[in-house]
Amino acid sequence: MHFAVLIFASVATMTAFALDNGLMRTPPMGWLAWERFRCDIDCTNDPKNCISENLFIDMADRLYEDGWKELGYVYVNIDDCWSSMDRDKDGRLQADPKRFPGGINKLARYMHDRGLKLGIYGDMGTHTCGGYPGTTVDKIEIDAQTFADWEVDMLKFDGCYSNAVEQELGYPLMSKALNATGRPIAYSCSWPAYQGGLPPKVNYTQLGQICNLWRNYGDIQDSWGSVLSIADWFFENQDVLAPAAGPGRWNDPDMLVIGDFGLSMDQSRSQMALWAIMAAPLFMSNDLRTISSGARSILQNKMIISINQDPLGIQGRRILKEKSGIEVFWRPLSNNASALVFFSRRTDMPYRYETSLSKLNYTTGSYKVTDVYTDQIDVLKDSTEFVVSVNPTGVVMWYVSAPGKLQYHQIIRGDKLRRHKYDAKQNNFL
Amino acid sequence: MHFAVLIFASVATMTAFALDNGLMRTPPMGWLAWERFRCDIDCTNDPKNCISENLFIDMADRLYEDGWKELGYVYVNIDDCWSSMDRDKDGRLQADPKRFPGGINKLARYMHDRGLKLGIYGDMGTHTCGGYPGTTVDKIEIDAQTFADWEVDMLKFDGCYSNAVEQELGYPLMSKALNATGRPIAYSCSWPAYQGGLPPKVNYTQLGQICNLWRNYGDIQDSWGSVLSIADWFFENQDVLAPAAGPGRWNDPDMLVIGDFGLSMDQSRSQMALWAIMAAPLFMSNDLRTISSGARSILQNKMIISINQDPLGIQGRRILKEKSGIEVFWRPLSNNASALVFFSRRTDMPYRYETSLSKLNYTTGSYKVTDVYTDQIDVLKDSTEFVVSVNPTGVVMWYVSAPGKLQYHQIIRGDKLRRHKYDAKQNNFL
Repeated sequence: MHFAVLIFASVATMTAFALDNGLMRTPPMGWLAWERFRCDIDCTNDPKNCISENLFIDMADRLYEDGWKELGYVYVNIDDCWSSMDRDKDGRLQADPKRFPGGINKLARYMHDRGLKLGIYGDMGTHTCGGYPGTTVDKIEIDAQTFADWEVDMLKFDGCYSNAVEQELGYPLMSKALNATGRPIAYSCSWPAYQGGLPPKVNYTQLGQICNLWRNYGDIQDSWGSVLSIADWFFENQDVLAPAAGPGRWNDPDMLVIGDFGLSMDQSRSQMALWAIMAAPLFMSNDLRTISSGARSILQNKMIISINQDPLGIQGRRILKEKSGIEVFWRPLSNNASALVFFSRRTDMPYRYETSLSKLNYTTGSYKVTDVYTDQIDVLKDSTEFVVSVNPTGVVMWYVSAPGKLQYHQIIRGDKLRRHKYDAKQNNFL
Repeated sequence: MHFAVLIFASVATMTAFALDNGLMRTPPMGWLAWERFRCDIDCTNDPKNCISENLFIDMADRLYEDGWKELGYVYVNIDDCWSSMDRDKDGRLQADPKRFPGGINKLARYMHDRGLKLGIYGDMGTHTCGGYPGTTVDKIEIDAQTFADWEVDMLKFDGCYSNAVEQELGYPLMSKALNATGRPIAYSCSWPAYQGGLPPKVNYTQLGQICNLWRNYGDIQDSWGSVLSIADWFFENQDVLAPAAGPGRWNDPDMLVIGDFGLSMDQSRSQMALWAIMAAPLFMSNDLRTISSGARSILQNKMIISINQDPLGIQGRRILKEKSGIEVFWRPLSNNASALVFFSRRTDMPYRYETSLSKLNYTTGSYKVTDVYTDQIDVLKDSTEFVVSVNPTGVVMWYVSAPGKLQYHQIIRGDKLRRHKYDAKQNNFL
């Protein structure tokens, strides 16, 4: 099948499958409060870090002024613990009046005035995970309308304090209710994470129809062990998960903890690289007011962001697990390009991994490889044996494209240059 | 008992117990090749990193030129994989001729010319852990003499390929043999690590008599999990281990991996703080040619080094384990001072830990507390409630001393100001 036909088939498929709001054709990017600021509501003793409108205004200012917005980080997302403990007299959710004196609508306008978007958090159940009012089935329509009235741009819908039957009912209903408001509100579903993340309990075809993104697995913590266990789960289950992803519908391995306390610089580069390979949402949860220049440069790496945001929206895969602890990941990109990540699970010293592009299933030809962290460029034949030195718990990440002078030739050759024939409808390999 | 009497008793005890070479009255400091460079002998493809005289000369140059030596980092220590696979015609160990063309003696002189010291590695057994010639009982005298002839300053004596009976014989014999050479050679014994690190298999009284330091536990790796598991073991067994330590005789929780690939900045500050509390040897195993400024500033922190090097040589202890994941460590220091470390095992966000010095068993009075990482100084009464914000997997570390104006008063009060009465002979609390 010709490549262009595949693309066409792909777009047609997405239109049919994805949540009918036209949003998130590439993975969403922004900032989310939870991992870094949790349910800190002690504004008396911890005013700079408590969950309050000031925190979100601070982060919006940083996104707007420090170059994040231009790179695509536009969502400013509230998580749990934002609301009052009681609904108002009309049964509507309301923000805590002391911590959000201007209300959510004022925050949304603050974001929109700066070209940013506001996300909010709800919970399909009697209570949120933090014990705040949840959204039972009878409250779904009124809560969706409240969020729309507030001009909110995204909803993360958690699943504490509900059972499988209630979730089966509630998650699709919220999707309908959000669409019915007429406001495009991106919809993040925690549903699969509560059902183990795998079929038959989880129906990824349905999720792609009702949600723009979904949390498949447990919450990330600020530790390398947590990042690695999440990445491992996603790549071990890639045959199930990768086909579910595409423009408008994304697997969500949870927030980036780069810039926090638990990752080394190499581990930070690894999270960024693996999340880009996974076509994962890039929600940072860190303190943008105090982030180190090292962490910032990783999160603001333009080439990795462009890989993450590739318009084909194909989720990449692990293609090799070596006994040495080296693993290789691969993601097909538009313009006949691809991304490669060499990752080391070792904890001793940099490992000199020797391979060639043909061993990584690249077809005959010459390739331009750009190291996305060092900007070093090489031209390699598929047969060229090369060595990459991979740091412990670190990565080497390459953007692999056709060398300029060969481009015409490559277009003519069509799918020969692609590593695998790819069925976009299935988002899977033939 | 009066404080001065305790000190006197302490010194008398050490003279009787410790290895009779007068060395390492404070924990040794320097650089050791193993964790970072392992058994990389591929000088053809990896000339800058292979175990060769060039590597040790490079590190010596860095110690000498980059301010390390002045801070006390004077040992440059070879580990495994330095030797030829065969002894010479006279049965002596010899360095690999290709990788150490000048021989070990030349390296020793290179160190001595710069005020540094050279350490070497041997193994009580038929082979080293890396498969190079070991030192069986019949070779102990000749190897000790060879090291002395080479003007080596320290021997790390590993224990691969020997059994408990051979170790029981060999480790004391090597101690005698080193002393018999007449050259002061510090002696690091891996013996207890091979016997589980605890009595009754391990006799710490004997170790203090024959070794200057000893590895109690498994090898460190370049990961926070490894650092934490080692710290946990040492503090869980502190009642056994702390009394064994003192001037000339040190427990060794293994190398500092600060500046490598696996620790965040907070985790690096934690390793440095906990190793200082433990009165641990400070052997860095990193690449001093490329170390980041952040890692360097932690390793070169003068106040922490002075805590580690306190002349009393009392190994500190964990004094509190809170359900919140906060732990408090304490080490008594000379001049009626002490060190406190607040450590967080959490992986979420900075934790605001509220306590007072009296809750940490400090006696009535005022104290000057200096944050060793921020240089912030406060004066606290024992009863003052304070909050320390401890980062996930991070520490806050304080040097606690008497405020200047109170010093005379405190000296008069003598042991009242000390947290516990301390029996220096037993290096244990009464």
